[in-house]
Amino acid sequence: MINFRNDYSDIAHPAILEKLMTLKDEKNIGYGLDQHVIKAKSLIQNHFSSEVDVHLMGGGTITNKTVISHLLRPYEAIISADTGHIFVHETGAIEQTGHKIIAVKTESGKLTPALIDQVIKGHTDEHMVKPKMVYISNSTETGFIYSKTELMQLYKYTQANHLYLFVDGARLGVALTSKDNDLTLDFIRECSDCFYIGGTKNGALLGEALIIKDKTLSENFRYSVKQNGGLLAKGFLVGIQLECLFTDNLFFDIGYQANHASNLLKEKLVNAGIDFTPTPTNQQFIKLDNRVVDLLSQSYLFEIWTDYGDTKMIRLVTTYQTTEAEINQFISDLTNAI
Amino acid sequence: MINFRNDYSDIAHPAILEKLMTLKDEKNIGYGLDQHVIKAKSLIQNHFSSEVDVHLMGGGTITNKTVISHLLRPYEAIISADTGHIFVHETGAIEQTGHKIIAVKTESGKLTPALIDQVIKGHTDEHMVKPKMVYISNSTETGFIYSKTELMQLYKYTQANHLYLFVDGARLGVALTSKDNDLTLDFIRECSDCFYIGGTKNGALLGEALIIKDKTLSENFRYSVKQNGGLLAKGFLVGIQLECLFTDNLFFDIGYQANHASNLLKEKLVNAGIDFTPTPTNQQFIKLDNRVVDLLSQSYLFEIWTDYGDTKMIRLVTTYQTTEAEINQFISDLTNAI
Amino acid sequence: MINFRNDYSDIAHPAILEKLMTLKDEKNIGYGLDQHVIKAKSLIQNHFSSEVDVHLMGGGTITNKTVISHLLRPYEAIISADTGHIFVHETGAIEQTGHKIIAVKTESGKLTPALIDQVIKGHTDEHMVKPKMVYISNSTETGFIYSKTELMQLYKYTQANHLYLFVDGARLGVALTSKDNDLTLDFIRECSDCFYIGGTKNGALLGEALIIKDKTLSENFRYSVKQNGGLLAKGFLVGIQLECLFTDNLFFDIGYQANHASNLLKEKLVNAGIDFTPTPTNQQFIKLDNRVVDLLSQSYLFEIWTDYGDTKMIRLVTTYQTTEAEINQFISDLTNAI
Amino acid sequence: MINFRNDYSDIAHPAILEKLMTLKDEKNIGYGLDQHVIKAKSLIQNHFSSEVDVHLMGGGTITNKTVISHLLRPYEAIISADTGHIFVHETGAIEQTGHKIIAVKTESGKLTPALIDQVIKGHTDEHMVKPKMVYISNSTETGFIYSKTELMQLYKYTQANHLYLFVDGARLGVALTSKDNDLTLDFIRECSDCFYIGGTKNGALLGEALIIKDKTLSENFRYSVKQNGGLLAKGFLVGIQLECLFTDNLFFDIGYQANHASNLLKEKLVNAGIDFTPTPTNQQFIKLDNRVVDLLSQSYLFEIWTDYGDTKMIRLVTTYQTTEAEINQFISDLTNAI
Repeated sequence: MINFRNDYSDIAHPAILEKLMTLKDEKNIGYGLDQHVIKAKSLIQNHFSSEVDVHLMGGGTITNKTVISHLLRPYEAIISADTGHIFVHETGAIEQTGHKIIAVKTESGKLTPALIDQVIKGHTDEHMVKPKMVYISNSTETGFIYSKTELMQLYKYTQANHLYLFVDGARLGVALTSKDNDLTLDFIRECSDCFYIGGTKNGALLGEALIIKDKTLSENFRYSVKQNGGLLAKGFLVGIQLECLFTDNLFFDIGYQANHASNLLKEKLVNAGIDFTPTPTNQQFIKLDNRVVDLLSQSYLFEIWTDYGDTKMIRLVTTYQTTEAEINQFISDLTNAI
Repeated sequence: MINFRNDYSDIAHPAILEKLMTLKDEKNIGYGLDQHVIKAKSLIQNHFSSEVDVHLMGGGTITNKTVISHLLRPYEAIISADTGHIFVHETGAIEQTGHKIIAVKTESGKLTPALIDQVIKGHTDEHMVKPKMVYISNSTETGFIYSKTELMQLYKYTQANHLYLFVDGARLGVALTSKDNDLTLDFIRECSDCFYIGGTKNGALLGEALIIKDKTLSENFRYSVKQNGGLLAKGFLVGIQLECLFTDNLFFDIGYQANHASNLLKEKLVNAGIDFTPTPTNQQFIKLDNRVVDLLSQSYLFEIWTDYGDTKMIRLVTTYQTTEAEINQFISDLTNAI
Repeated sequence: MINFRNDYSDIAHPAILEKLMTLKDEKNIGYGLDQHVIKAKSLIQNHFSSEVDVHLMGGGTITNKTVISHLLRPYEAIISADTGHIFVHETGAIEQTGHKIIAVKTESGKLTPALIDQVIKGHTDEHMVKPKMVYISNSTETGFIYSKTELMQLYKYTQANHLYLFVDGARLGVALTSKDNDLTLDFIRECSDCFYIGGTKNGALLGEALIIKDKTLSENFRYSVKQNGGLLAKGFLVGIQLECLFTDNLFFDIGYQANHASNLLKEKLVNAGIDFTPTPTNQQFIKLDNRVVDLLSQSYLFEIWTDYGDTKMIRLVTTYQTTEAEINQFISDLTNAI
Repeated sequence: MINFRNDYSDIAHPAILEKLMTLKDEKNIGYGLDQHVIKAKSLIQNHFSSEVDVHLMGGGTITNKTVISHLLRPYEAIISADTGHIFVHETGAIEQTGHKIIAVKTESGKLTPALIDQVIKGHTDEHMVKPKMVYISNSTETGFIYSKTELMQLYKYTQANHLYLFVDGARLGVALTSKDNDLTLDFIRECSDCFYIGGTKNGALLGEALIIKDKTLSENFRYSVKQNGGLLAKGFLVGIQLECLFTDNLFFDIGYQANHASNLLKEKLVNAGIDFTPTPTNQQFIKLDNRVVDLLSQSYLFEIWTDYGDTKMIRLVTTYQTTEAEINQFISDLTNAI
């Protein structure tokens, strides 16, 4: 079976596994206070033109829960696209911390100042929650990315309206290495209040690096991490991995390779006459007859994104492990099936 | 520096790291539905005389939060020793889920039916929380263990009083391999409603196996795991480790070795004339003059447990990595210092 | 100023205030265990053909919080119209208890089995919340009511799908006394799991009577009431009022009078040539030019429901206190203004 | 039956009921924005030498929940006497908002800087909750009061340690009118961050006035009130009552009369040779043989405070309604019984 199912099917990038092996006799202090964590933070800090607060976290949902519950007062709410991961796919993890998510219909899963403004104008008094944070994902859950101009406009709007801007970067690796991308880590820092650099979907066993711009926001943040169950006893485990990912450009290489495979796939899908809306990152969505989907599913792993009855939208995810041969095989089988 | 600080300073047992390396080209389905998780559950199930529900979890605090919030109604409370990890050292993680912990003073961190009964008798109406769960740790936070008789009596009491009995097994490895132990995994299953087998402090990178006896209690449990941030994308990571720990008795060997080192340490401390209350597992607590503590802390890592002013109680933790040479060195330096 | 603002501007119906005065030397046991509460429950029970559990509550938001948090597991969610009071106007009170509200676009604020079914079909696994309760309001927030057939179909659907059906009856008084109504208290009991009879908007100082059909659902309910801050020390205060409202048909008379005034208002609005969608209860919504709204607001109290820029939708609420003279005056001023 | 059970057995002081009757034709705007609330706040403000923020609330538990959840970050905790109402008798209402209460053993239910300091010294890092608020009751749950010196010392300590000091004044009426009292409302304002003036146990139907000293603490407070279910639709109901209580000294008269009766009772208990620890307010606790308790309970209402087996501690509460004749009768029956 050839894998187009997702970007977290590998145990970890070989470089990470090898690094862990070389350190097998090491002993480190617990809870993220060790030298690897310090080194990883320093390597990440090097990407920024001013000092930030970096926290190494053990997973996306925990990171979202911790950031949101740490920053918001009980009656404050989050604005998210209605495709946002926190709104759809975290089993009410945010509501469990007491906060309402105000969902907004969007194109491509991307929020705009105009969309947010409608929410703000509709929340006027204490009988309604008080919107206080804007949550966006880059890349979005459907593979699209924000441009410099878009992010800057969002940040201007949130600043002017006393809102936090939080960027979920579970797939920031592919976003920043997309051909269409003009963002940098430093620009995201400048134009957001906090964001995270996702490791789990970009070669790590687990682990994400959360960046908080303003240290007044992160005061006592480790208390929140611990309360939310995110303070790993063996915090050095995340430290070692991020140290590895931010050495020799590995983090970006992994994203670049996933996008490179996706670009190949897109090109060949177009050549094969498939009508679809290509995305700039490692997820492509194509609509096929059920018969074709059934045939392909005998040799390929992928997710059914939407079921339309006679046809289905399927999702094809590429990773740093996807080979040109796998793509060629898929296109060939797809063409034959059609 | 020689490590007596804790039992989670190693990256992982070499067997686990090697196993990960051998699997580096494997791709697995996410969220704990993979073959490794299935295999690990089956290996664990082999220890039980009747079928249980096993959930592989990513950490102790998350496990405690998930179990407690899953089983209790909002107004129900947990009874714990006042030394219990959930009461002292989880930054209100349980209260964050809305539940009160009723703390009880104990000897050795161990609850008894008589102690619990006082709490039950004192909670009589709807103006007070309703105690519904008893939480115990084995080994306790201070190194002691429950016997068969003690556990059976606790379970009889909780059954008779419609309480759940939940055993935190973060250090179950050393508990079950202590010379004084007469419990088995199967006996704990029989005499509790749920318990977990801790991996993090027994050689794993991270990961614990939660055992729920009655499947009606674990209905929809994966929803609770996800909501609490405990559903790892790469769930196979915990699966592989527990598969490894429950192959060739590794889990028990690791605990046995830690206890063996501790037994050596105890014997030599006694011979050295140190007056202390030995524990049956891998944590020993000795009281020393500040001057001695300061001297030792130049060559040894350990935690200050209690500060009495002129003297301090220090904690010495042994692990599967502790060598006889390290212990001899410590005893020698301690004797010289005194 | 003539009041069309809302139905909770009066202190209380005179019969209630007089009743309180006559009891001024009485002493009662606290927390709702007194004779008045018992009597009120018995008077309410008389409306039902089988035994129910009645709880007297001190307000709508508290009632909603208590019912929802009592019945649902942490990962379970509520389905509501996107105009539902709990979704829009309770400042995240439900989310504060940890539960997500899944909002659905509707006609007239009314849910249907088809609308609910779309939600159920879209929530399929543990990565999403589990819908477990359907929340409807009768009358709805915009004045419409459910028929016997509609309620029965909803209940059949919820029963078949293991969902609770909860009816917010903050304005049940006007719903049940509408000319278009064919429901009875007993039919609502039969076709729902719980509902409440609103006192605050129907002549009481404060107070609602919650009806829970199945006693297994209300086990330990008073614990939840207390935890949510809803157990009034002077519970007899609500008892006395509901005793009063359910004596000599007062509860229904108050609703009837409010509707009667609304019917008059509707008729005269139609005669005056106003184009609007009449509702069957005590709230009417009409769209007027800003100039007319400004003029009317000098002599009448009402709420701006929606601001369309040049025009505004205003809400006109009638109560048992509204007189025909007030309506005539309003129609006259409205006609002149136009 | 003669009532010594509690101070919330009356419907309300006659002056309040009469006031409500005189206003029966009035219509007021909802949610506490009416003229009565404004007037009540102004009357209360007159007691203070600098401007405060006053919020009229509908009950003690709701007030405690709202204040605590509004002021604290998720990981912050409250220090309370282990007899504190929030710790014992609110069914986990505070924990429901996510916060741990750290309980301290005390004399007379009163906290001291030394007792608090032990807690602060024991909470040193992010593995434990962060104490942030000190909660005291005046009078305490067992009838004792704080002096100027004691309150000032507490406030100095909390200020120096960045803690909030919150005074639960459910029984502030009897505290401030005790013969032993030297506090004033203005002094409590000066030496606390917030406190409330309890109406429910001092003649009101329901209602308390919360005083927040620093307006930065009460920013968006009405959002928290609404979310916690404490924003009464008919907020004017509390407004009218507090207006009434703070006119012609009624609030203090009611407290004074309750204490006056208690003083009589104490004196006569002493004369009757009863050995007990008198309190300075309206609750007295005496220990009697079970036989005597049984006899008295045929003619008197009171609560069993503690059951010692052969003897019981009973609580005798006096109110503004208690008469000298009732006290004489009780003493006579008590003497005969013994």
